[in-house]
Amino acid sequence: MKYKLKCTACNKEYSPENIEYTCPGCQGILRVDYDYEKLKSTLTKDVFAENPIKGHGRYIDLLPLEKHTSLPPLDIGPTPLDDVKRLRQHLSLNNLFIKNDTTLPTGSFKDRASSVLVAKAIELGKKIITTASTGNAATALAGMCASVGLKNKIFVPQTAPKAKLAQIAMFGGDLIPIKGTYDQAVSLCREATEKFGWYNRNTGYNPYTIEGKKTAALEIWEQLGYQIPDKLFIPTGDGVILSGTYKGFYDLKQIGLIDKIPAIIPVQAQGSAAIVRALLEDSEQVSPLNDVQTVADSIAVGAPACGDFALQIVRSTKGFGVMVSDDEIVAAIKELATFTGIFAEPAAATAYAGLKKAKQEGLVAKEESIVVLITGTGLKDVPTAMKAVSIPDAIEPNLQYIST
Amino acid sequence: MKYKLKCTACNKEYSPENIEYTCPGCQGILRVDYDYEKLKSTLTKDVFAENPIKGHGRYIDLLPLEKHTSLPPLDIGPTPLDDVKRLRQHLSLNNLFIKNDTTLPTGSFKDRASSVLVAKAIELGKKIITTASTGNAATALAGMCASVGLKNKIFVPQTAPKAKLAQIAMFGGDLIPIKGTYDQAVSLCREATEKFGWYNRNTGYNPYTIEGKKTAALEIWEQLGYQIPDKLFIPTGDGVILSGTYKGFYDLKQIGLIDKIPAIIPVQAQGSAAIVRALLEDSEQVSPLNDVQTVADSIAVGAPACGDFALQIVRSTKGFGVMVSDDEIVAAIKELATFTGIFAEPAAATAYAGLKKAKQEGLVAKEESIVVLITGTGLKDVPTAMKAVSIPDAIEPNLQYIST
Repeated sequence: MKYKLKCTACNKEYSPENIEYTCPGCQGILRVDYDYEKLKSTLTKDVFAENPIKGHGRYIDLLPLEKHTSLPPLDIGPTPLDDVKRLRQHLSLNNLFIKNDTTLPTGSFKDRASSVLVAKAIELGKKIITTASTGNAATALAGMCASVGLKNKIFVPQTAPKAKLAQIAMFGGDLIPIKGTYDQAVSLCREATEKFGWYNRNTGYNPYTIEGKKTAALEIWEQLGYQIPDKLFIPTGDGVILSGTYKGFYDLKQIGLIDKIPAIIPVQAQGSAAIVRALLEDSEQVSPLNDVQTVADSIAVGAPACGDFALQIVRSTKGFGVMVSDDEIVAAIKELATFTGIFAEPAAATAYAGLKKAKQEGLVAKEESIVVLITGTGLKDVPTAMKAVSIPDAIEPNLQYIST
Repeated sequence: MKYKLKCTACNKEYSPENIEYTCPGCQGILRVDYDYEKLKSTLTKDVFAENPIKGHGRYIDLLPLEKHTSLPPLDIGPTPLDDVKRLRQHLSLNNLFIKNDTTLPTGSFKDRASSVLVAKAIELGKKIITTASTGNAATALAGMCASVGLKNKIFVPQTAPKAKLAQIAMFGGDLIPIKGTYDQAVSLCREATEKFGWYNRNTGYNPYTIEGKKTAALEIWEQLGYQIPDKLFIPTGDGVILSGTYKGFYDLKQIGLIDKIPAIIPVQAQGSAAIVRALLEDSEQVSPLNDVQTVADSIAVGAPACGDFALQIVRSTKGFGVMVSDDEIVAAIKELATFTGIFAEPAAATAYAGLKKAKQEGLVAKEESIVVLITGTGLKDVPTAMKAVSIPDAIEPNLQYIST
């Protein structure tokens, strides 16, 4: 086997043949550890630069799969790392980039993990895969399953934006909306996994979601000419996008291709900020929130699956947490769109709102290299975006009604 | 100047310094003609293969621009050419590909032309750019303008899907919804161009829209290993995506990089099928339709701007026209999504509905290489997609309510 599983909480190591989800000892999240010593001699920059494989299968040496051809046929990335010149001027940040994951096949970052998990399910011979999701992981999983014909069971809060529910139904996923929160959907999905023997893709539970998510970091490193940025702003709910992005840089560091990991900066909505609150209070552990309220549905999480691991990551990379209000999030959707042409869903715009706040508080410097991860398209939640704009009244088709 | 403008109707040639839109003699659409003899010696396959430029700026030698750095900073393509294995089995078409332009920055094919037109406006020193659109060209133009800070005036029928109107407003475009059809929006935009001196991006009027659209063909050729497909299915309204895709292959043929052009197959909605009707009736010219009715808003066009040129193209490439009903279009959205994980807007799914019909009628063969151009994301028109699916009722979060 090309990797081992190591518990991020108790450090115990396991062989992947014997284990599917969390640490049997302490229930900690398992990290995939590759044979980094061997990779040091085989995986050089030139190997990356000359790799002809399209989509994120190009990173097969760092994926927990037997072969890249197990991946679904929907190409994942590389998504653009946009040179947002006008936004740079606006914010006086000369080396700002947007990692534009709105352009992935189902419109969100979650396609990365779902692609890898569907491939894993195929390699393991699983017949049914399941997930609980605020919406994006669900549409991503249903889409990837559609492309290969794998059965799927999708748990989402019934309050998920209609566009996301429509996408899941469209892909032929077995959609199970529940009268409850995302956290309740996660619990129910876990119970169903145990009872019915389905394969569970859940974030912060299945060790391979992080592996799929890390390809964003690998792309950023390649797109910056095999350099890392100074800071990464990441919209955060469960803390798994954060953990996944970190893992990409971690792998590169273990192989000796980079010598440090960028500062990882989670941005959360005020009404759903379990991780950032723990950072601000210097807590060792994340305390779950009973009540979660935010317009940013994709990061509305009370009990973050990767909460404690996220705290470790932010601290070890000398990052910091940022909280923003729903009003700031809605305004950020509009401002980001107006200065870049990138239309983000509320959760994704949260990362940009966090950058703005960090700038105002003097936490980022003009020449620092900064990447903001924009994780989902605004087309997934038009009603929320409409809070920031209005459509003018229609005119009769006559020149006299046109103002210049 | 690296190109001339040549009228597609009367063949008269012009220097681009003296002309902005259609042929001053006969009002025909002008085609951009490069110095193909010179390009034969400089633009080889190796030059394409080794080109490091990201986005469609890589085709600068075949774009009507001074330099690729004039292009907006939102990367355009290459979009995936997806190996849709499951759909191939479903249709018994072994060499079927989907060109997935749902993944472009604003979610539609129109980003290609808008990117090139915004670059052209910048190089020409234009201060305001305008377009009339069913919605996608408008959002694309507003998005590209946002990324560089160019003022824009956008005419759309007030009946355009809400998501498209929201996108335009979000990008800070000066949105002018009109009480009327797309054809009326086109006329009004033209009048406003003349009166106020704005730069007009309209399809089938400005000669450079076709140049932007052609990059899809160049990508397909590169992605197929410098080969062309046998047949291309293209959703068709004005006939400009068709003309643009043709132009990409035409340029390659003029340079000697390919020796024939694929069969170009326009697919139209029954209630908006001016071009296909002319093909079926063997007419020399397209007769405009007074009343246009279709669920596929992006291709709801009564008087196609590129109609006659489109007829020439289809006939010269030995293509044929296909018409599909609105019911077939809605069913195609669902079927395409279910077998590929690609969620298309109605107009885009029209191309797939056309392929199905052509297959049923024996017009495509099992081993032929076929590309279906999917031009816009289904997230742009969720209400129409919802006609094909339903969202199940929500359940209490309890295992007893889950069926396996």
